[in-house]
Amino acid sequence: MKKVELKEGERIDDLQRNGYGIIQNPEFLCFGMDAVLLSGFAGVKKGGKLIDLGTGNGILPILLSAKTEGEHFTGLEIQHECADMAERSVTMNGLEDRIDIVEGDIKEVAANFNAASFDTVVSNPPYMVGGHGLLNPGAPKAIARHEVCCTLSDVTRAAGWLLKEGGALFMVHRPFRLPDIFDEMEKCRIEPKRMRLVYPYADKEPSMVLIEGRKGGNRRLTCEKPLIIYGPDGKYTEEITETYGY
Amino acid sequence: MKKVELKEGERIDDLQRNGYGIIQNPEFLCFGMDAVLLSGFAGVKKGGKLIDLGTGNGILPILLSAKTEGEHFTGLEIQHECADMAERSVTMNGLEDRIDIVEGDIKEVAANFNAASFDTVVSNPPYMVGGHGLLNPGAPKAIARHEVCCTLSDVTRAAGWLLKEGGALFMVHRPFRLPDIFDEMEKCRIEPKRMRLVYPYADKEPSMVLIEGRKGGNRRLTCEKPLIIYGPDGKYTEEITETYGY
Repeated sequence: MKKVELKEGERIDDLQRNGYGIIQNPEFLCFGMDAVLLSGFAGVKKGGKLIDLGTGNGILPILLSAKTEGEHFTGLEIQHECADMAERSVTMNGLEDRIDIVEGDIKEVAANFNAASFDTVVSNPPYMVGGHGLLNPGAPKAIARHEVCCTLSDVTRAAGWLLKEGGALFMVHRPFRLPDIFDEMEKCRIEPKRMRLVYPYADKEPSMVLIEGRKGGNRRLTCEKPLIIYGPDGKYTEEITETYGY
Repeated sequence: MKKVELKEGERIDDLQRNGYGIIQNPEFLCFGMDAVLLSGFAGVKKGGKLIDLGTGNGILPILLSAKTEGEHFTGLEIQHECADMAERSVTMNGLEDRIDIVEGDIKEVAANFNAASFDTVVSNPPYMVGGHGLLNPGAPKAIARHEVCCTLSDVTRAAGWLLKEGGALFMVHRPFRLPDIFDEMEKCRIEPKRMRLVYPYADKEPSMVLIEGRKGGNRRLTCEKPLIIYGPDGKYTEEITETYGY
């Protein structure tokens, strides 16, 4: 890893993958299991172009540059401090040729990117509806978790603009939003094609859903086997261990 | 059980519940695990009125009359031979006061039932889209499995007519139809509120989905813990054994 300057409160975490690291600041949202699972669920074809909507500290482009043969990765992020951390993580890992971090608004992709210019869109968007009841809706973690700066519909509309015909959207979200997710995707001609529920334990409610949609796809959803995080012994299941690359 | 006349090809199967039996004919569709799981997933309030759309041999009203405190159950069936079998099973079990079998078409419920006259609708409708490629689309099993006589949208529209405000629709279907299911329910103001995927094994794709919708409900789906049919030993899991009542 190249040396980069760390700002106050920042640390470098090991990604257990290609020797890559990532700069994080606990004041902002640190990446979680959702991003890691999405990096295992998503794909981009050899030589393909991918964009991550709301990239945060750049975790998805960095992991996907290691896990796929995609040619180029763009991370779009509205929060300056996050985009800046992501930028320095890209430099630190020597990935400047493959990853661009762009500071900007998901709602304005039409002004900044050509239509149908990406093969793949990924997103780990805010899960919670609106920002009601938040003490501080402008706080960095609130922006990452709640639909303060962008809604599900903003994400699917941006994906509809950015994707080539036949291109794929990969998203991680909360199962309670499934009817919304299908609705918003279909409004943008992105047909839900693949779905996997993530259950913390084999006998508990699912905590996440992984979704793949295809622009202009026909209607038929494949539901995959359950992704279970912990075994009866309370330890990560084999699949989780593999996804993390430990 | 009262004595009833059996026709050629018919047999009586034990339902392992209240001493009830059911008349079946293998030439028609015999009830399967989907109906039994739906009877465990569905509910009707004490004193409530329920209708089963496409009741076949009457398995759902008979099981639900045993499992719930619902006051009255209607089974609607378009195939004369099935309705006739269901009718005789009702008589055989002495359930004439609680269950009515009505021969008729799901597409014509508005002519035969008052609007908003039921608390609960259940349905185990045909799963497969259209009847294309069928050698004999008029065959009894084709009608039960394929959307020859009624489509998903016919079922949700009928449910929208029949249900009281706040009433519930319970359905078992195939996971690959989920986007359709949500779509069609929402068109009829029936909001998906609860969903459970049924996996044959903990490491296999789900084969069924159980869905509960609520007429006029607000948007928020609860995804339940997985329902797994077989344990690693190849035997029914405890939950399946309990649902069957063995």
